Amino acid sequence: MRAVPIAQHAADLPPGTTRTDPMIIDCDPGHDDALALLLAVGDPRARLLGVTTVAGNQTLEKTTRNALRVLALAGAVDVPVAAGCDRPLVGDLTVAEDIHGVSGLDGPDLDVPVAEPAAVHAVELMRRLITGAAGPVTVVATGPLTNVALLLRRHPEVLPGIRRIVFMGGSTERGNTTPYGEFNIVTDPEAADIVLRSGVPATMIGLNVTHQALATTEIIAEFRGLGTRLGGVCAELMTFFAATYQRVFGFPHPPVHDPIAVARILDPSIVRTVAAPVDVELAGAYTRGATVVDLHHRTGRPPNADVAVDLDVDAFWRLLMTAVRNLGR
Amino acid sequence: MRAVPIAQHAADLPPGTTRTDPMIIDCDPGHDDALALLLAVGDPRARLLGVTTVAGNQTLEKTTRNALRVLALAGAVDVPVAAGCDRPLVGDLTVAEDIHGVSGLDGPDLDVPVAEPAAVHAVELMRRLITGAAGPVTVVATGPLTNVALLLRRHPEVLPGIRRIVFMGGSTERGNTTPYGEFNIVTDPEAADIVLRSGVPATMIGLNVTHQALATTEIIAEFRGLGTRLGGVCAELMTFFAATYQRVFGFPHPPVHDPIAVARILDPSIVRTVAAPVDVELAGAYTRGATVVDLHHRTGRPPNADVAVDLDVDAFWRLLMTAVRNLGR
Amino acid sequence: MRAVPIAQHAADLPPGTTRTDPMIIDCDPGHDDALALLLAVGDPRARLLGVTTVAGNQTLEKTTRNALRVLALAGAVDVPVAAGCDRPLVGDLTVAEDIHGVSGLDGPDLDVPVAEPAAVHAVELMRRLITGAAGPVTVVATGPLTNVALLLRRHPEVLPGIRRIVFMGGSTERGNTTPYGEFNIVTDPEAADIVLRSGVPATMIGLNVTHQALATTEIIAEFRGLGTRLGGVCAELMTFFAATYQRVFGFPHPPVHDPIAVARILDPSIVRTVAAPVDVELAGAYTRGATVVDLHHRTGRPPNADVAVDLDVDAFWRLLMTAVRNLGR
Amino acid sequence: MRAVPIAQHAADLPPGTTRTDPMIIDCDPGHDDALALLLAVGDPRARLLGVTTVAGNQTLEKTTRNALRVLALAGAVDVPVAAGCDRPLVGDLTVAEDIHGVSGLDGPDLDVPVAEPAAVHAVELMRRLITGAAGPVTVVATGPLTNVALLLRRHPEVLPGIRRIVFMGGSTERGNTTPYGEFNIVTDPEAADIVLRSGVPATMIGLNVTHQALATTEIIAEFRGLGTRLGGVCAELMTFFAATYQRVFGFPHPPVHDPIAVARILDPSIVRTVAAPVDVELAGAYTRGATVVDLHHRTGRPPNADVAVDLDVDAFWRLLMTAVRNLGR
Repeated sequence: MRAVPIAQHAADLPPGTTRTDPMIIDCDPGHDDALALLLAVGDPRARLLGVTTVAGNQTLEKTTRNALRVLALAGAVDVPVAAGCDRPLVGDLTVAEDIHGVSGLDGPDLDVPVAEPAAVHAVELMRRLITGAAGPVTVVATGPLTNVALLLRRHPEVLPGIRRIVFMGGSTERGNTTPYGEFNIVTDPEAADIVLRSGVPATMIGLNVTHQALATTEIIAEFRGLGTRLGGVCAELMTFFAATYQRVFGFPHPPVHDPIAVARILDPSIVRTVAAPVDVELAGAYTRGATVVDLHHRTGRPPNADVAVDLDVDAFWRLLMTAVRNLGR
Repeated sequence: MRAVPIAQHAADLPPGTTRTDPMIIDCDPGHDDALALLLAVGDPRARLLGVTTVAGNQTLEKTTRNALRVLALAGAVDVPVAAGCDRPLVGDLTVAEDIHGVSGLDGPDLDVPVAEPAAVHAVELMRRLITGAAGPVTVVATGPLTNVALLLRRHPEVLPGIRRIVFMGGSTERGNTTPYGEFNIVTDPEAADIVLRSGVPATMIGLNVTHQALATTEIIAEFRGLGTRLGGVCAELMTFFAATYQRVFGFPHPPVHDPIAVARILDPSIVRTVAAPVDVELAGAYTRGATVVDLHHRTGRPPNADVAVDLDVDAFWRLLMTAVRNLGR
Repeated sequence: MRAVPIAQHAADLPPGTTRTDPMIIDCDPGHDDALALLLAVGDPRARLLGVTTVAGNQTLEKTTRNALRVLALAGAVDVPVAAGCDRPLVGDLTVAEDIHGVSGLDGPDLDVPVAEPAAVHAVELMRRLITGAAGPVTVVATGPLTNVALLLRRHPEVLPGIRRIVFMGGSTERGNTTPYGEFNIVTDPEAADIVLRSGVPATMIGLNVTHQALATTEIIAEFRGLGTRLGGVCAELMTFFAATYQRVFGFPHPPVHDPIAVARILDPSIVRTVAAPVDVELAGAYTRGATVVDLHHRTGRPPNADVAVDLDVDAFWRLLMTAVRNLGR
Repeated sequence: MRAVPIAQHAADLPPGTTRTDPMIIDCDPGHDDALALLLAVGDPRARLLGVTTVAGNQTLEKTTRNALRVLALAGAVDVPVAAGCDRPLVGDLTVAEDIHGVSGLDGPDLDVPVAEPAAVHAVELMRRLITGAAGPVTVVATGPLTNVALLLRRHPEVLPGIRRIVFMGGSTERGNTTPYGEFNIVTDPEAADIVLRSGVPATMIGLNVTHQALATTEIIAEFRGLGTRLGGVCAELMTFFAATYQRVFGFPHPPVHDPIAVARILDPSIVRTVAAPVDVELAGAYTRGATVVDLHHRTGRPPNADVAVDLDVDAFWRLLMTAVRNLGR
């Protein structure tokens, strides 16, 4: 594998801002994963070391292809991409075709030339990027946590090199796949358990905040108004997503989950968190995969995660819109 | 046991209103249970056949004594009261002394002469009242569902005589005893499962709506402003309850759960419900006792309950305040 | 209900023997339940106060009719019979038609005139018999423990009147309905949990010993050789049972589970027991209803049951054969 | 890492025998693991490619050191050894110090010079050995299945190179760590689930057969009578093991679990198996880690393992004794 450069797609840093810790995004694109990638590529503060993919919203083959398509659209062709696990640690894979379509990224015409993924496994790419980085790396996970959990168990020596794991997943309230289960965690509850018990600092971005970031008609119009192909693609992605959320959940506008995890790193003030004990229900006839967040500290156990509880919705959309505008294209 | 008259404590019916089906309240007073009893005694539309008690907020001995104290305060000495189960069907009892105090009704001075409970078990009193009633009876349950479940299993012949079971318990969102578990259901999950699978029409009044009915400073002042002893007792009950909810949950004002179940019967328009499948999690390492409400019909199972999803807060407080005023005393 | 006499069908007591405590049999006949009834009616030491029935091997209607048919065959028409629960406490009933046939007692021609069951529920008959008995009563349960659990929860005042609950159910080894679950306990695990945590002394007669009591060809011939109608019926019951055990489990001879519980009371030396902690698995994706017996005291919990671990097979068959012979008919 | 030779410690093959498929042993020595290693090194038919270690009977550091000590004693210094996972996939590690002592191999004086383990992780060594082998490899696992499960999930491309996974673990009857749970599976139930659902042919050597292989006083004397240091070490290992099994389980002689998995490969006729569906209980309050073996095919699911049901005890001891004698030393 070639040396892995730090991504440098974006304009010079705005005055008064600093670059983030280097970042790896582990994802399963997915409409909202796509926006998370665009945010990490388009914001000048972000330092995206690499992208790894996992089965979740669609099969591994499709999510990997989708990650490559999105990066190609954004011109981020030097960001290495590696495919990881094609199924959860335990149990079978159930993809979210009802939400993300047959391709996993239905809606826009994304027929762009696509590079090949790296010849190494996602877990190995993460290991190399963490080992080779100048300082601690933040891992952003926007899909099931299978790859991340496998990294922690297979290469425990890299743990000190991980600053924090920021994952989109779970909820302090209701879920979206089962009444109390969110898709990423329900897909691989054991992986989430491994991450949350690993001792690595973790930030949970759950449905309770991501359901505040709705891609309204105005937001979609604003994407389209950017006048770029990328802006148009974002608008079409959100239009497709709106239709599925309307059909399946009766939502008037679709929530945009995954980019909030990246936004939290770029500007922590956008997402307010509280430290709390979080357990993943691994048993349960109806609740397997629920994230059980003890917000009122009734269990007496020490916190193991910073749990997102509020979102600055306007600031979030400014951040994302600016990043897509930055990318031009 | 003496004959059981229909309660007749309240003034003549207001024009345009009709009396409800006869009602039995199964409860574990409890501050909010006390208000539920006052509402059922003080509203002229209510026909309260009897009151049965169960262990929950406090031990059976205490909840029974509290029910008798509240009825004595309200002058409803002819309402029969019977004590039922002193523990859940499965497992041990854990009372809510942190919420309701040592007596189960801490706060006011309730040193009133108290009658003896009936010499029959709660399940037998329910059976007799249902069998002897002129028409179908509504069972209102504001504590763990132990007595009600036992009635359904021990006397299945009375099922046709039950119009509906309206229970305060569970949540479509978070719980109050565990992150996803509400006290009444967590205390006896198997009883809740029996009720919800019995085929008897059920209405679930969960925390998602009861947390809208907050006894604010203004509400407490209004109780006190009634100028009656009973109004003063209500104010003191809510003042004590406010302190525990502040200490345990950080709530600025305490929710008043149980009277909403009675209010739903008196005026259905006060509580909006949707039909949904509700399962009780009986397993689960962290979620036992959660009510799993499939609001988006993703499981494809038929609804087995009408689940409260919204409350007309002002109308509720008017109903309750009027009932306490009606009682005078 | 008429007064309940002590059963007196059998010959005078043999020298050197004494009568047992009065006994109630709660059962779901069932081929082996039938033999348990015959043993309790035919052994001169047994004092059978009454028989109660529960859904299990077949529906309640069928098990009740079968109990009445067996008692009629044995001439024990003065033993009161009452029907109890028609389903387990939690969940749905699954009968064992593959084992016991459509009638629950397939095989012999049992077309005898049958009395009506008592007009009270099994739980009420048990309560009356226990309350009215001169001394503590032993409850023998050979079906799911639904009735017994309901008695304990509904009438806790009778607990001091119960000397011991001897139940056929569970296993220290493998099960027969699931790999680790025995039929009676799998049918109503919560009821078994209630019994085992009730504090009432309990004796568990599990498959680990009942699988030693095989109705061999010789045993069947011996029944037939008694030359009575009853002996012939026993032979035909065992012949049918042999065919199902051969087909379902590949057993060369069928085990005769239930009469061992009665035999334990008549002559404790026939069944060796050890005191051990026994838990019922109520959760578990594959093990619900397993009896988890800590024979090696690795949990450190105190014993809550005397668990049968060995059987004097010859003595058992002598006891049963003698009882059937005593009955003549 | 140096090239990995095929082990060639043993004498020429006996007439009429052939060499087995190449074999990797994944283990956590452990007294009986030590005998498994000696059998695989000392039997001329065995082709031991390498040894990997896992946390289980003791910590990873200790089990790795113990594997190296045993191989050094046997003169098998060219067999590569690599350390793997230091904890189960999910949950915390609980070692079996009560059974295997502080060192994991208490009893004999094993103060031999010990090589360093390979500089690669167990999973990587397994991958290389499987990839580099001339034909399909058999994986023998005598500890928790953590390493093997990680291999299957991290390197699914090696699956076609695995002929079969033969593991000591589980039981068709009772367990040894909990009433229905055997130590290796209880330690990492999710790993066992992954292996059993992987589609790789699996053979389960459970307690139901290993408890037939008791190291009696005669067997221990026979080890000692070999007159070699190795024979003496075996005698001392078994003497220590006998004391712990006597103390903890009241066994008169200790069972020798792990070498039976190797013996099955050397001579399949020694262990009789039946094909059956095997599930691992991952939930369950009392049964987590139980192997639920559907011997009577009542679930209707297809078999996923060959389950050992009988052992030729004499042939087993002959095989093991001969191997230790072969090694001389």
